[in-house]
Amino acid sequence: MPQEIRTVAIVGCGVIGMGWATLFLSKGLKVIVSDPAEGAKDALERYLKQARPFFEAYGDFEQLATNYEFVSDIVPRLSEADFVQENGPEREQFKRGLMKTLDEHTRPGVLIASSSSGLPSSAFIQDCTQDPSRILIGHPFNPPHLIPLVEVVPHPGTSEKTISAAMSFYQSLGKRPILLHQEVPGFVSNRLQAAINNEAYSLISRGIVSAQDLDLAVTQGPGLRWALTGPIATNALGGGGGPDGFVQRLERLGPSIRAWEDDIFKHRFDWSDERLSALKDSVKKGLGATDWRDLIEERDSVLVQLLAAKSRTTTMGTQLPK
Amino acid sequence: MPQEIRTVAIVGCGVIGMGWATLFLSKGLKVIVSDPAEGAKDALERYLKQARPFFEAYGDFEQLATNYEFVSDIVPRLSEADFVQENGPEREQFKRGLMKTLDEHTRPGVLIASSSSGLPSSAFIQDCTQDPSRILIGHPFNPPHLIPLVEVVPHPGTSEKTISAAMSFYQSLGKRPILLHQEVPGFVSNRLQAAINNEAYSLISRGIVSAQDLDLAVTQGPGLRWALTGPIATNALGGGGGPDGFVQRLERLGPSIRAWEDDIFKHRFDWSDERLSALKDSVKKGLGATDWRDLIEERDSVLVQLLAAKSRTTTMGTQLPK
Repeated sequence: MPQEIRTVAIVGCGVIGMGWATLFLSKGLKVIVSDPAEGAKDALERYLKQARPFFEAYGDFEQLATNYEFVSDIVPRLSEADFVQENGPEREQFKRGLMKTLDEHTRPGVLIASSSSGLPSSAFIQDCTQDPSRILIGHPFNPPHLIPLVEVVPHPGTSEKTISAAMSFYQSLGKRPILLHQEVPGFVSNRLQAAINNEAYSLISRGIVSAQDLDLAVTQGPGLRWALTGPIATNALGGGGGPDGFVQRLERLGPSIRAWEDDIFKHRFDWSDERLSALKDSVKKGLGATDWRDLIEERDSVLVQLLAAKSRTTTMGTQLPK
Repeated sequence: MPQEIRTVAIVGCGVIGMGWATLFLSKGLKVIVSDPAEGAKDALERYLKQARPFFEAYGDFEQLATNYEFVSDIVPRLSEADFVQENGPEREQFKRGLMKTLDEHTRPGVLIASSSSGLPSSAFIQDCTQDPSRILIGHPFNPPHLIPLVEVVPHPGTSEKTISAAMSFYQSLGKRPILLHQEVPGFVSNRLQAAINNEAYSLISRGIVSAQDLDLAVTQGPGLRWALTGPIATNALGGGGGPDGFVQRLERLGPSIRAWEDDIFKHRFDWSDERLSALKDSVKKGLGATDWRDLIEERDSVLVQLLAAKSRTTTMGTQLPK
């Protein structure tokens, strides 16, 4: 493992790749990037320009944001990379071939991280003949330069050295990596999202609540807490704080919660045509009048303010807990 | 229904009742409050004092926060109330008797809202002989004076006039009420919380992720989005925005999501002793070192900043959508 990472190869430059490029460049790293899609180079240029205010928090925009090469073929340039972030399409066969190539053409010990959002790397490292122990998942959230979370998911053969190097590298970029101890489909965050979304789709498709009110039930209520304290700490606070508060709440509310769960699982959203159609109708009715450009702009602005407010705390920032 | 609500009776003054009292008083309403628990009166006084900065945003603290009477028996005072907010223990039999009393001693047409957090009012209005059509659920989130969400849940016999009066009243206090069209156990927000918590408990108890990293998987990732755009709008944005974006995302990711869901339901947290014990161990290990007083103070401070930032937007405030 190279002690210092100065050059990063970004393989695949859609929305996620562009966000990674923005992050790496803002921290003064050199980036070599490729994507076969038409217009990908121009799209990256536009993305970086729009991120100018982000860059200016770290240094000179012109200097940082131009420190990249967009290449038509990444393979001959892989030997220059100290770290690879792969963002190809989420198709098993495709990633299998790509990983073989990346493993063949990078220097020994160079870490290869895949941005796969739910497919564990065991599914696509079978043909890596050089050293699959330096391969793992580094799954970011969109936009990767703004959202701190990175899910680090090793496969059973990933080395301890690779795991700790990946955690340190992402941490050094101001990210907040978490470590999964076993591979599971969907990893952690997408599973949590799938769990809440299934119940959301269920309630809307059953006509219990409109799509619009469903969103308000989160953004004006528990969503505010989830941005700050997470499900477990929120539970603990509901019981008076601390691990004892967590247990106390479980004991006090357990019977009610189990009854709710049974009802949730009984009525789970089954993706039937009928329920899908009711869901889509409510979404169309409820969100049709939203001004999406205003929403995106205001969301990004509030997100930056929220992250800044959290970073000023000792308990909720991206710093590692004591 | 009285056109103007000037006096509110708060029946039951634990954590939720104290938050309601703070909200009502801050808006210039008179409050008559009772709670049989020892020390309840002093606890309310302390709570109001701690909320001084909150009051000062609305007017003179001494004038607003003292406009209440703590009475030992609410019954003879119920005739003065223009609105009743009930916050008794979440026990069916208890609430059944209490509702009968409230219905008997309030003036005709006065709305009676229960803060029940998951028990629909059908379960406890059977003995109301006067007028159960003015009874419904008005379920707040803790702390009620800060968190905008109120779930309004009518029973099948609640009148339309009661529903719209309750929505208007909460709205006039700066709350963001949502309306449930059918009674379901746990209402909307507690069901969404139960859904995500079950998967959180499952992942932790299976050893896939630590309790600490589970919280970070939310607070540093999707929790940030849920505070701002909610599950449905977040999905729509993931597909490019708008109802079409929502459908596009469902079609693109549907197969992956369904596979994750199957795995989630297969491994759902079953509340067995073994898994409960693994869950509690991880929570103890992960949250044992947290400074809860710092966390609560910082959470409240960031929460106020977040709500202020949202209220300055046109798309994410508590105002009713266009």
